[in-house]
Amino acid sequence: MPAEEFRKSAHEVVDWIADYLEGIRNYRVMPMMEPGSLVRSLPKSGPEQGEPAARILEDFRDLVIPAVNHWNHPRFFGYFSVSASHPGILGEMLMSALNVNGMLWKSCPAATELEQVTLGWLRQWLGLPEEFFGIIYDTASISTMHAIAAAREMADPEARQRGGAQNLVLYCSEQAHSSVEKGAITIGVGQRNVRKIAADDQFRLRTDLLKTAIEEDARAGKKPFCIVATVGTTSITSVDPVSEIVPLAEKHGMWLHIDGAYGGTAALVPEHRHILDGATRAHSLVINPHKWLFTPQDASVFYTRKPDILRRAFSLVAEYLRTAEDERVVNYMDYGVQLGRRFRSLKLWFVLRYFGREGIIKILRNHIAWAKELACVIDADSRFEVAAPARFSLVCFRFRGSDEQNRLLLDRINADGQAFLSHTVLNGRFVLRLAIGDIKTTREDVMETWKCISKLADTL
Amino acid sequence: MPAEEFRKSAHEVVDWIADYLEGIRNYRVMPMMEPGSLVRSLPKSGPEQGEPAARILEDFRDLVIPAVNHWNHPRFFGYFSVSASHPGILGEMLMSALNVNGMLWKSCPAATELEQVTLGWLRQWLGLPEEFFGIIYDTASISTMHAIAAAREMADPEARQRGGAQNLVLYCSEQAHSSVEKGAITIGVGQRNVRKIAADDQFRLRTDLLKTAIEEDARAGKKPFCIVATVGTTSITSVDPVSEIVPLAEKHGMWLHIDGAYGGTAALVPEHRHILDGATRAHSLVINPHKWLFTPQDASVFYTRKPDILRRAFSLVAEYLRTAEDERVVNYMDYGVQLGRRFRSLKLWFVLRYFGREGIIKILRNHIAWAKELACVIDADSRFEVAAPARFSLVCFRFRGSDEQNRLLLDRINADGQAFLSHTVLNGRFVLRLAIGDIKTTREDVMETWKCISKLADTL
Repeated sequence: MPAEEFRKSAHEVVDWIADYLEGIRNYRVMPMMEPGSLVRSLPKSGPEQGEPAARILEDFRDLVIPAVNHWNHPRFFGYFSVSASHPGILGEMLMSALNVNGMLWKSCPAATELEQVTLGWLRQWLGLPEEFFGIIYDTASISTMHAIAAAREMADPEARQRGGAQNLVLYCSEQAHSSVEKGAITIGVGQRNVRKIAADDQFRLRTDLLKTAIEEDARAGKKPFCIVATVGTTSITSVDPVSEIVPLAEKHGMWLHIDGAYGGTAALVPEHRHILDGATRAHSLVINPHKWLFTPQDASVFYTRKPDILRRAFSLVAEYLRTAEDERVVNYMDYGVQLGRRFRSLKLWFVLRYFGREGIIKILRNHIAWAKELACVIDADSRFEVAAPARFSLVCFRFRGSDEQNRLLLDRINADGQAFLSHTVLNGRFVLRLAIGDIKTTREDVMETWKCISKLADTL
Repeated sequence: MPAEEFRKSAHEVVDWIADYLEGIRNYRVMPMMEPGSLVRSLPKSGPEQGEPAARILEDFRDLVIPAVNHWNHPRFFGYFSVSASHPGILGEMLMSALNVNGMLWKSCPAATELEQVTLGWLRQWLGLPEEFFGIIYDTASISTMHAIAAAREMADPEARQRGGAQNLVLYCSEQAHSSVEKGAITIGVGQRNVRKIAADDQFRLRTDLLKTAIEEDARAGKKPFCIVATVGTTSITSVDPVSEIVPLAEKHGMWLHIDGAYGGTAALVPEHRHILDGATRAHSLVINPHKWLFTPQDASVFYTRKPDILRRAFSLVAEYLRTAEDERVVNYMDYGVQLGRRFRSLKLWFVLRYFGREGIIKILRNHIAWAKELACVIDADSRFEVAAPARFSLVCFRFRGSDEQNRLLLDRINADGQAFLSHTVLNGRFVLRLAIGDIKTTREDVMETWKCISKLADTL
C-alpha cells in the first residue's frame, strides 16, 4: 500500500474509532439479524484483483458493523463486560505495527523486558510476593491449561516422557469455569477425573467436601494432584475459601491454582485486597487484564511461584532457537505451548500508566458501588429477586416468575437493543446476569438499563 | 481518556506508524543492548497517578523502540520473515476498537460469519475441497496441538473421559517443528511416544522408515494414531512426501495433519499448488496468515475434514453459554481450548481484499524468485555453499569454514544492524538462514544484504 494511502486510511480509521467510541450509545448493542445474513451479503469467492482500502472500509461500516455485538458498548452487560480503553487501543495499534514475536529475549528484548516490568508492577499492586514469576498468555483458558500441565509435572515428573496420567485427580467447585474441565481433558487427565465439588449456599466451594473427596480418592489409590479455586466465579462471582483450601493442598502436596481471571482484579482495590489473601501461598494464579482491567483482548496474566516446574513441563528448544544469551535471560517460549508471542505487555503498559493505580481503583470502586446500588434497587422491587449477594460488579437477579418468563425477559431486553445481558442457571433456576465492567459505563447507564428492564417486565 | 485526547494521540500514533514503516530502513534491525537495560530504565513500581498519553508515547519512542528487534523491517530475514502489511494493521486497529469475543455466534455474529467467509475464500485459493472446515486459532503451536487432540479423539474416543493415552504413538520427521513434540507432551501422549523419523538427503521425511516404524509399533502392541507431515519445514523448508504418506495413514486409520504454517501459503501460487496435492486427503492442515500472508500476528488457520471429531474432543458448553441459535449456527468455541476468540478474520479480510489473489501471488512469486537468485549468487561464490536447494523463499547457506566462523559471521551480520538473519544446524553443521517474507522487502534489500554478508566474510 502506498504510504500516503495508508496514512489517509489510517487517519480515517482513527476518526471512525474516535467517533464510534464517542457516539457508541447511538448503536444498538446486539444486532438484529438472522444467522447467515452477513455470509450471504459477501461474495462467495475472494477478489482476483485487489481493492482500494476505501472500499473495504465502506463494506466494514455497511456490512460488518450491523452484524457486530458491541462488546465495547457501555451498556454491554453480558458475560463479563470487558473494555478496550483508549490507551489500550493505542497500545494495540503500535503492537500491530511492530509485529514482533517475543518468543526469545533475543527475538525482541523489548517484548521480554516490558513483560517483566509490567507484570512486576501489577504483582506489587495485587499484593503478591516477589517470588511470583509472571507471563502473559492469550486467554485464561490457556493459562489454566498451563497450570494443570505444571501440576501434572509436579505430581508425575515422568508423565512428560511417558505420557498418560490416568491416575491423577483434579478438584474444583461445581461453579468453576468450563476451561478447568477443558484443560483437564486437553492435558489428558480425563473428564471423569475432574471432581466438581458442591458449593455452599453462597456458591463457594465447600472445603469439607473437598477434604472428603481428596481423602477418598487417595484411599482408592488415586493421586489427587491439583485444586483449582476461583476468586470470582463466572456465573455469580462467588469466591472460594482459598485460605481454607491452602492447607489441604499443602498437606497432600497438590498444586493449587487460583482462577481470578475476572475477580482477581478487584484485589487492586485496598478494601478488596483480602480476596487474594490465601493466594500468596497458591502455586499459580491467573488474572485477565482483558477482562476488568481495560486492556483490549487478548491478555491473560499468569503468575506462578514455581516457574521451574512450568518450564520443565514445556521447555523444548530447537536448534534454530538457541541463543548466546540463553543462560542470562528469560526466554518466555520456554514456559508454554505457544511459540508465537505478541507484544502484549505494550498495551498493558499503556493502560497501567495512563490510569495509574489510583485511577484504576477509582473505576473499579465505581463499578462495585453501582452493582451494589443496583442490587438494592432490584431487591426493593417486589417483582424481582436478587439471586445472590452482589460481589464485585456483577448482579444476578430474576423476575419472580417462571424460567420461561425470565428467558422471555432476557430476549426482550436484548432485542430492544439498548443493553445486552446474559444469563446463567443457579440452583436450577434461570437467572439474569448484569455485569458492569466497561470503562465507559456510567451510573446512569446502569440505572437507565434497569428502568428499561423494569418496563419490559411489565410486558411479561 | 477524553475523546479529544484519544483523537489527538491516535492520529499521532498513526503518523508515527506511517513514518516508521516508510523510514524503517533507517532503523538498525536488531538492537544493541545488554540484557536488563530496558528493565533498568523503567521504574520498579507502576505510577500511583495516571500519566498523559503524550508522556507514555515519548517513553515508547525513547526507551522501548531502541530495545525492539524490528520484525516488520524489510531486512529482517530471521526465523520466518513475517509482515504486518498496511491493510492488516488497519484491520487490527478496528479489531481492537470493537474488542469482541467471537466465542459464540450470538456473542458476535460478524466474527463468526466473517471467519466462515474469509476461510472459504482462502480454502478455494489453496485448492482445498469444500468439505474442509476452517477455524482461526492464535498460533500454529495451538493449531497443531488441536490436531493431535483430535487425532487422540479419533483413535481413542474414551480418552476424553478416562484420561491417559500411554499407548498412542505419533510420527513426524526429525525436521518437524518443535511444536509437534510440545503438542504431544501437552496432550499427554508423552515425548517418548513421538517418533522422529529420519529425513532423506533433501530433508524430507523418509516414507520407508515411517512405514517400518508404524508396523513395528503396531506389532509391539502400540497404537500408531497420528502422523504430522510438514510442507515447508522450519529449518530448511523441505516438503515431506505427503502423497506417499496418505496411504499409510489411511491403511492404519491414523490422523494425518499437515503443518504448512509457513510453506502452505505457497500453494496460492499456481505453479506451487501441487505442494498440497496429498493434503486434500489429510485430516487437518495448518497455514499461518501471520507468517507469509502479510497479516499481523496472530492468525493461524486450521482446516479439518473432520470437524465433528474436533468438536467431540473439545465441546463443553456451560449453561451461561447456551443460546437459542445453537442448533443453527457454528459456535467456534466448541472447536478448541480457548473460549476467548479475537475477531481475527477482520484483519485477514482486509489483507485478502486489499491485495486480491493476483496481488498476493505476485508478491509470493517475487520472494521465491529472489531466494532462487540469491541461492545462485551464493553458489557462485567459492567462499560459500548453499546448504540445500532453495524452496519457497528461504536460503540456507554457510561459509566454507568452521562452525565457529559461521557463528561469528552471523553475529557480525546481526551486530552490523543492516539486516537480521538466524541459523539452524543441518547434518550437524551450523548454517545461516535468510528468510524472505516481508511485504516491503525488495530485490535490492536482498542483494544489498548479500553484499554486506560478503564483505563481512572477508573479516573472518
